[in-house]
Amino acid sequence: MTERAVCVIGAGLIGGSLLRAADKAGRTVWGATASDGTAEQARADGFDVGTDTDAALRRAADTDALVVLAVPLPVLPEVLRRVDAVAPTCRLTDAVSVKVAVADAVARYAPRARFVGGHPMAGTAESGWAAGNGTLFVDAAWVVAADDGLDLDVWADVAELAWACGSRVVPAAADEHDLAVAKVSHLPHLFAAVLAAVGAAGEDDLPLALAASSFADGTRVAGTRPELVLAMCEGNRDALLAAVDDALGRLGAMRGALASTGGLAATVRAGHAGRQRWAAARDPQGVRVRIEGPGALAELRDIGRRGDAVVGWG
Amino acid sequence: MTERAVCVIGAGLIGGSLLRAADKAGRTVWGATASDGTAEQARADGFDVGTDTDAALRRAADTDALVVLAVPLPVLPEVLRRVDAVAPTCRLTDAVSVKVAVADAVARYAPRARFVGGHPMAGTAESGWAAGNGTLFVDAAWVVAADDGLDLDVWADVAELAWACGSRVVPAAADEHDLAVAKVSHLPHLFAAVLAAVGAAGEDDLPLALAASSFADGTRVAGTRPELVLAMCEGNRDALLAAVDDALGRLGAMRGALASTGGLAATVRAGHAGRQRWAAARDPQGVRVRIEGPGALAELRDIGRRGDAVVGWG
Repeated sequence: MTERAVCVIGAGLIGGSLLRAADKAGRTVWGATASDGTAEQARADGFDVGTDTDAALRRAADTDALVVLAVPLPVLPEVLRRVDAVAPTCRLTDAVSVKVAVADAVARYAPRARFVGGHPMAGTAESGWAAGNGTLFVDAAWVVAADDGLDLDVWADVAELAWACGSRVVPAAADEHDLAVAKVSHLPHLFAAVLAAVGAAGEDDLPLALAASSFADGTRVAGTRPELVLAMCEGNRDALLAAVDDALGRLGAMRGALASTGGLAATVRAGHAGRQRWAAARDPQGVRVRIEGPGALAELRDIGRRGDAVVGWG
Repeated sequence: MTERAVCVIGAGLIGGSLLRAADKAGRTVWGATASDGTAEQARADGFDVGTDTDAALRRAADTDALVVLAVPLPVLPEVLRRVDAVAPTCRLTDAVSVKVAVADAVARYAPRARFVGGHPMAGTAESGWAAGNGTLFVDAAWVVAADDGLDLDVWADVAELAWACGSRVVPAAADEHDLAVAKVSHLPHLFAAVLAAVGAAGEDDLPLALAASSFADGTRVAGTRPELVLAMCEGNRDALLAAVDDALGRLGAMRGALASTGGLAATVRAGHAGRQRWAAARDPQGVRVRIEGPGALAELRDIGRRGDAVVGWG
């Protein structure tokens, strides 16, 4: 296993946790943040984090370190312009929750970077350096993009960083990742919002007084800060539209059956089967792979498609 | 407080828990079940439960006991015919999860009964006598129907039974109850089913491999036995259609906004506000009331509408 140094741009919940986790794993780590206050907090905790993004990137270029972009999507173009100016061919990954939009931004603003997208599927309702911790990624799925044409050597860097942080690696094409998270993460947030709005609609509180665990669970993520939900969902618009339309089609068919025959069996049984399939798909065993040869990336994508994860080199 | 005797028809999860809870509270209790096996189990646990419904009802008529119907909705007409034949003017309540359909059935099959509908909002995924327990109703909301024209003396009987079982009493008109549970209980089951089906749709398991807590929580109740969900939702068809149409309207508006401007703020903020209103409405303080005079039932309904509960006599 290489022990490649890691440069993290952004020191919020994800970037801050990544700095701590990689440090704990014995890596040389440093970073940069746009916020004086954040840099101060990070330095007080013993981390080499400043506010000079160019300096951090230059050091990465000099040492062939892996650069991880852990900044919100809207800030990405600005950061990528610095990458292109200071570390144009660096090893580059990211921790943003959508993958097609990030790949497009990299192609546009830092086209020479050796880029492999990433998405550690971990988070809390909190944000900022103080909310981070070095175990945030333990046992999480960490998606590593496996589109054709990318640099296998950088793919291995990103996978090894994920393992060092305690995650399992789920390889996926960028567009398949975006559709998957639209279905299982973004759509659940929208459903929770609509369910909470229906329950609270009207003038009286009787529905809320009668709400029990099915409502509590079904609306839990509606308690997340709206800004976080909006950043996540709006950044994945195309895939989310597809997921919403799938859901609307099923709801429309259900509505029709309820109005005509009064029967809900098809809806309820499909949902039960889906939930059981999810329960069975949890905690994949994990496979060990070699990545070499022209078919390597296609093989990686197949591992993710069958719900499995890569846990080490074979 | 009266210590009225209680006759429970049906000895499954709800009826069996009710027999145990009322017994624990010092009431004289007996019951009947259609199942030999259930009657045997209940007797082995020391309860006076047989398979002769007529005999149980006759004893209730003789002692002016409160009869509680804890049988599934489809079985209700048959049981109500026995009530009308053997204990036609008895004090009668029920523990079925819809209230308009039950009131209609009583008006049709046992019109002379002194009926006040009830719905203890408690349950587990399990069923049958063995799954029951005497603390099932502790801290639960127990809806007691408060439609005009009912017998206030029987209303008090039902309220006192609910308190004896550890519940708080939420008064509500039958139709308002049905719409409320459609919104906060039945719709969440349908949303969970559709969400689980969307997540499990297609040939690959990548979405399920990436599903985390938002999906787990949003689909939890899709794990309930389909028969239970169908009995509950299909029995509340009219109110459920109204709730589904409300939800579809909101989802349609959200879909339109996502497709046109890409903005989801209205949906997400309304959901966040709804969830916060629910959180604030939990654990009502509880009020003590007198029920007398012509406005008593209207006053009771107002208590439920403002999300409060009755916890004793004032």
